[in-house]
Amino acid sequence: MSRSGIGRRQLLAGLAGATAGIALTGNAAPLAAREVTRWDETTDVLVAGSGSAACSAAIEARLAGAEVLLIESLPRFGGSSAMSGGVVYAGGGTSLQRAAGFEDTAEDMYRFIAGNSGGHPQLDKIQRYCEESVEHFDWLVAQGVPYNNRFTDVKELTLGDESLYFSGNELAWPARERSRPAPRGHVPGLPGMTGGRSLMEALLARTGSLGVTQRASTSARRLIVESDGRVAGLQVAAGDALYNIRARRGVVLACGGFIHNRDMVQRHAPALFDCSAPWGNAGDLGEGIAMGVAVGAETLRMHQGFAITPIYPPESTLAGIVVNAAGQRFIGEDAYYGVLGDAIAYHQQGKAWLITDAASNFGFHQDNFVAVAEAATIGDLAVRAGFPQGALQHTIAYYNRFAAAGRDPLFHKQSKYLAPLAQPPFTAWDLSVKRAFFTAHTFGGLHTDTDSRVLDSRGEWIRGLYAAGRTVAGLPVAPYIASGLSVGDCTFFGRRAGVAAAGSGGVSA
Amino acid sequence: MSRSGIGRRQLLAGLAGATAGIALTGNAAPLAAREVTRWDETTDVLVAGSGSAACSAAIEARLAGAEVLLIESLPRFGGSSAMSGGVVYAGGGTSLQRAAGFEDTAEDMYRFIAGNSGGHPQLDKIQRYCEESVEHFDWLVAQGVPYNNRFTDVKELTLGDESLYFSGNELAWPARERSRPAPRGHVPGLPGMTGGRSLMEALLARTGSLGVTQRASTSARRLIVESDGRVAGLQVAAGDALYNIRARRGVVLACGGFIHNRDMVQRHAPALFDCSAPWGNAGDLGEGIAMGVAVGAETLRMHQGFAITPIYPPESTLAGIVVNAAGQRFIGEDAYYGVLGDAIAYHQQGKAWLITDAASNFGFHQDNFVAVAEAATIGDLAVRAGFPQGALQHTIAYYNRFAAAGRDPLFHKQSKYLAPLAQPPFTAWDLSVKRAFFTAHTFGGLHTDTDSRVLDSRGEWIRGLYAAGRTVAGLPVAPYIASGLSVGDCTFFGRRAGVAAAGSGGVSA
Repeated sequence: MSRSGIGRRQLLAGLAGATAGIALTGNAAPLAAREVTRWDETTDVLVAGSGSAACSAAIEARLAGAEVLLIESLPRFGGSSAMSGGVVYAGGGTSLQRAAGFEDTAEDMYRFIAGNSGGHPQLDKIQRYCEESVEHFDWLVAQGVPYNNRFTDVKELTLGDESLYFSGNELAWPARERSRPAPRGHVPGLPGMTGGRSLMEALLARTGSLGVTQRASTSARRLIVESDGRVAGLQVAAGDALYNIRARRGVVLACGGFIHNRDMVQRHAPALFDCSAPWGNAGDLGEGIAMGVAVGAETLRMHQGFAITPIYPPESTLAGIVVNAAGQRFIGEDAYYGVLGDAIAYHQQGKAWLITDAASNFGFHQDNFVAVAEAATIGDLAVRAGFPQGALQHTIAYYNRFAAAGRDPLFHKQSKYLAPLAQPPFTAWDLSVKRAFFTAHTFGGLHTDTDSRVLDSRGEWIRGLYAAGRTVAGLPVAPYIASGLSVGDCTFFGRRAGVAAAGSGGVSA
Repeated sequence: MSRSGIGRRQLLAGLAGATAGIALTGNAAPLAAREVTRWDETTDVLVAGSGSAACSAAIEARLAGAEVLLIESLPRFGGSSAMSGGVVYAGGGTSLQRAAGFEDTAEDMYRFIAGNSGGHPQLDKIQRYCEESVEHFDWLVAQGVPYNNRFTDVKELTLGDESLYFSGNELAWPARERSRPAPRGHVPGLPGMTGGRSLMEALLARTGSLGVTQRASTSARRLIVESDGRVAGLQVAAGDALYNIRARRGVVLACGGFIHNRDMVQRHAPALFDCSAPWGNAGDLGEGIAMGVAVGAETLRMHQGFAITPIYPPESTLAGIVVNAAGQRFIGEDAYYGVLGDAIAYHQQGKAWLITDAASNFGFHQDNFVAVAEAATIGDLAVRAGFPQGALQHTIAYYNRFAAAGRDPLFHKQSKYLAPLAQPPFTAWDLSVKRAFFTAHTFGGLHTDTDSRVLDSRGEWIRGLYAAGRTVAGLPVAPYIASGLSVGDCTFFGRRAGVAAAGSGGVSA
């Protein structure tokens, strides 16, 4: 029985509680520097947020010699990164991959990400990320993030204490034909889903030991802008008071996405709005994005996000089939659950069903999914679940015919998950975004370049302004193809924001 | 033989020529009013653009007593509206609907639009549009747009001279079960696809006769903004010179979408980027959107647009079936071609095939679609076209079984289009976005309220700034469910922009 299987709804209940009482009280409109009568404080680099993007920026800026102030709107540091699995998607031959006996190249990693990230992804960011991934993983190790050299082939966020696994869609078709698969999920090596906490404990400790000033319960409210458009600082709120903080070299917005700003989600990402389990730290209210937009920043991919429904573990369920309202399969069921969730939420109008037989059933009690029908024959199941006349029978007849031979002509599911659905009882599980356990997190945000500089709609840098993490439209897109791309993007481009801001003019391209 | 069937590729070639030589030379960054040393001209309301949104705004502003200047970047007036079919989606019992013997209500019209426009559409705009649609059509008549009282039941932009037809998805399932269908496509009553030209000739004539100053070859470059954020005017370019024009009451951005700004399309709407036939006036370069973003406007639905592939006329083809790469049907083939195109471009990775038999074949030479395979049996066709083993055969066996009885359990295609695919030869036509004739136009743009006031990311009005037409995220969304929703939205909310701007504070809600 899986710990993961039973804990998710409780986790959700906890999140809902955490967001209660948070209201949008800010005003994102920029403040003209000439209207600032008093600077309450001055620093070189001001970082808004305290997740993995913010801390990575702060560390690099400090290492580059800048005085750094980091502010967090909530009482506790860590952001959504601390709640996450803490996976960093890394490859190209990291020390951990090599220690575990895997070969990988930056090219294969690039082909995997670029070739499976929807149409026209940001290739410059993907290229930079892959080329420097080995170095980036070494950097995480150097910051004190605890990894070990053990690999697991379990298809799920590691529940043991291994640090390396296949965290994404690498082995699913057609991804496995586009690039040589390698395990690239790098996760702190501690038992249970505590990777995010471990990651952030290390990064926050490092931030503190380097002399970054950290201030909680302090929220960014308005960017302060010079008459020539340059960002000069930030007006922040702490308690009932407002303070004007000058940032000599730059402001880094790394204060999360907007999944908990429900109006904003409904307006921009309706497919995510309908998902049952908004996922993210309570501070994910879109404030960083709003402040950027207010000074003319362009946003990208605001409708996108991850929509994840964890039909595994156990892997046995992957021998079931997933069908749409027409009773048709539309995906190989061994897809990474972010890819499966995307297909349902964005391309099947939020509705799907998992059909299992006795062999592919969950095998333990779980409360993530509701069984809408159970029957001794496929025909009875189809009628009870309400599929169009004859459709499910037709689908399963075709599927079973080839599955018996270890083949899946439609979606090429890996043969180890292929077996005819033949052992009653047969069950139809509701995978709809509203009724199943379906987590959602936003990916849309400010448009930045590979130096994490915030761009306007002409592609011009808004001077003095940097951003990273889910405040930004980064590597994670819909479909979300691997765990670790989001925190990986946060840490990688967070670092670049810190370097660029400390240099006060952007690092070289 | 259809005039429409043979003319489209030639039309496309003409469009491509029209866009050649247009370069983005502007700089959208706002200009501070205090830096304006000289106002070259002053008006009450300044309208950028000359399509149906712009002219409707200009007419209303002028009727409200404002002095109005309208500028157009190209040498010729009319915008994309003049190239369009000129259809306005109107209902609720217009004079034309009543004269042709059709009953309709604002509620049915609302249910059709709101219930089929994807998740979480902007209900306030839809409601206003439907409630005032009868009046809006009367207004168009009063401006001199030439309609007659004749209806046609031909399923395509009227090729005769009738003024009323079913222009959308009203009769397709499930739309027809959600609201009582009515014909709502209102089009100038002249032979051929000249509706847009007729519409714009009328609106431009009216604009001129009311005393609106019209200036061609004059392009908007930068908004001029007061220190308190209020939009005060526009810097425009004409020839080699720049001019600063003051707008006492407001600026209306109605200068089109961005389908011809290929970088912008690739960045924001990758699914549209891949379509073979970017459709729109050469001025659709996103300048209005960029200027709005530069002063802090929020954008919505930037990834959306219409993606249309006209598999009809002739209607006989609708007795064929459309399948995806897995050889599965995914839509009722009698869907409005905007709904079909959306399903292919956005939800089937841009790939689909139309399968016809001798009875459902085009019946005339056409160059919109390429036949990838032809065979005497379905089995041979499936092999030649490369579908997964047995998949197409399976799909057609199921389809034929029910079609013989006039039923379509999966997608409920209207029975008049249902017949078994049984008469060889069988043909597979490529409907992919890249190889078929696939027109694309953008729908994303500035966020406005029902008074066409441009909003920032907090929902606050950017004072002095209005926008309408495809510069705005309006009624048209993906899927695009009916011809006439775009020009209907342009004229309706263009008018509201004009009224609000002339009143210089927005009309009452």
